[in-house]
Amino acid sequence: MGRVRRPERDPLEGLRERAGDRRSGASEIFQRALNLLVDSARLGLPRESVLECVRALCDSHPEMVPLLNLSAVVESLTGWPAGAVGRLEALREHARYARLRAAEAAAARIEDARRVVTLSWSSTTFEALRRAALSGSLREVVVAQSLPLGEGLETAGRLASLSLKVVVIPDSAIPSQVREADASLVGADAVLGDGSLVNKVGTLSLALACDAFGIPLVATTDLLKVDVWGRFRRPETSSCDGLPEPPKGVELECPIFEVTPARFISIYATEEGPVSPLDVVDRAGQLLRRLVEG
Amino acid sequence: MGRVRRPERDPLEGLRERAGDRRSGASEIFQRALNLLVDSARLGLPRESVLECVRALCDSHPEMVPLLNLSAVVESLTGWPAGAVGRLEALREHARYARLRAAEAAAARIEDARRVVTLSWSSTTFEALRRAALSGSLREVVVAQSLPLGEGLETAGRLASLSLKVVVIPDSAIPSQVREADASLVGADAVLGDGSLVNKVGTLSLALACDAFGIPLVATTDLLKVDVWGRFRRPETSSCDGLPEPPKGVELECPIFEVTPARFISIYATEEGPVSPLDVVDRAGQLLRRLVEG
Repeated sequence: MGRVRRPERDPLEGLRERAGDRRSGASEIFQRALNLLVDSARLGLPRESVLECVRALCDSHPEMVPLLNLSAVVESLTGWPAGAVGRLEALREHARYARLRAAEAAAARIEDARRVVTLSWSSTTFEALRRAALSGSLREVVVAQSLPLGEGLETAGRLASLSLKVVVIPDSAIPSQVREADASLVGADAVLGDGSLVNKVGTLSLALACDAFGIPLVATTDLLKVDVWGRFRRPETSSCDGLPEPPKGVELECPIFEVTPARFISIYATEEGPVSPLDVVDRAGQLLRRLVEG
Repeated sequence: MGRVRRPERDPLEGLRERAGDRRSGASEIFQRALNLLVDSARLGLPRESVLECVRALCDSHPEMVPLLNLSAVVESLTGWPAGAVGRLEALREHARYARLRAAEAAAARIEDARRVVTLSWSSTTFEALRRAALSGSLREVVVAQSLPLGEGLETAGRLASLSLKVVVIPDSAIPSQVREADASLVGADAVLGDGSLVNKVGTLSLALACDAFGIPLVATTDLLKVDVWGRFRRPETSSCDGLPEPPKGVELECPIFEVTPARFISIYATEEGPVSPLDVVDRAGQLLRRLVEG
């Protein structure tokens, strides 16, 4: 195992702090938790204490599928702690490049498209568009404002630094813009057991338009975001940021996420290349078993 | 013909002023133009001068189908001026109640719905919802914000004065809200020769969701808005009111209207009751011929 880096602090305490982390994204929390788990195994901390911390972490982020999968992995590891270190390191190594490979697969999938519609912010989608702009035929990206929160503007601003025509549209115009595009591209917050996609609200409008007008919808996701064991619980997260004050007697209702049924997704672009929504759960399960069993 | 009201001013001058009117809606301009035409016929003004003014009016409002139809009616009138007065008065009488009857037909169509989704502002749709709230089972209306311009808030505010639960949503959430509704209801800026609907942007998102999830989409329109003779020219109107400033190097694109194909409209609620999108042009043609030929 070579030289063991001495962790600076108690890994279990670190895991407990991650449970309270409401600011970081799923990938960031996942990477930190994985580092802390590697440390826990190296230090030979008791399996039950580690498991307890991982479960608390999942309970506080029940929508972060990579964490839920990580918890399932830790539960299934044999030979704790000695046998666990190599497995957890293999998972960490996989996770390190998975999103980049998913972006690569997405870029390959849209290499003939000149005009692509997208929404919200996804680092994987952005990387795919960057690659397509460099080596594909991509010339124009249409970005929906993505209310509530309006992350489309962040995406648009960053795309504008590449050599692309970038257009922002109101979310109401998504279907008419899809009609005149070659492809649509979105990220993923999670993929459910039936192959459906959990992502920012607006995705369903995009997906229905793609379906109606025969435009492919590519969803970029690494397989670690696939809810292989059905542990995902839909978050009740809502925000009305970016929406005007309602008139007297009127409610505002602004959920952030929505579920797009599998039949409206053309393909998932993953670290293993393009995967059909019908196969994505099996493929993710196989991958995780391979990583755990070696 | 009874006592003839003396018009206060030159009707042709009035028609010329209407051509320059950029503030009033199609129905208002239509009603005023019709009054001026009745006056023109009563005063026996020369047919060619009247026609010239009507054509100029249409040229300056090529998206206002009632005006285009009015122009076609004036062109086809026989026996100017004597025979024209009664015909134009019959048309005016029809127009006076057409929208109210269309609202009545829409209310009848949604009388079993408890939860309806709508968008933008339409006086006919509002009247239909008001009637459904009074005598139907309607309890809740979900109104999309309707960017650009955001007229959904006006609709929501006025609905809130009735005894209804009123919820405003971002346009991104239209499809997921439709999924949980009993019906959707929209107005019409125009109906084209192929039965498709010209209406505020966002309508296509609503229509695609209705189609995907088996929810009826009722479009309220009087038959005078149907482009019987193919004279409609799509306006290039756009506005980005209500959208944030784009980042550097990014364009904003905000068309106001969009076309929803006939296959996504369940029914048009008209002054002659519910009419299929396949039949709506024929029905409007028959109505106009009846009014003109008596």
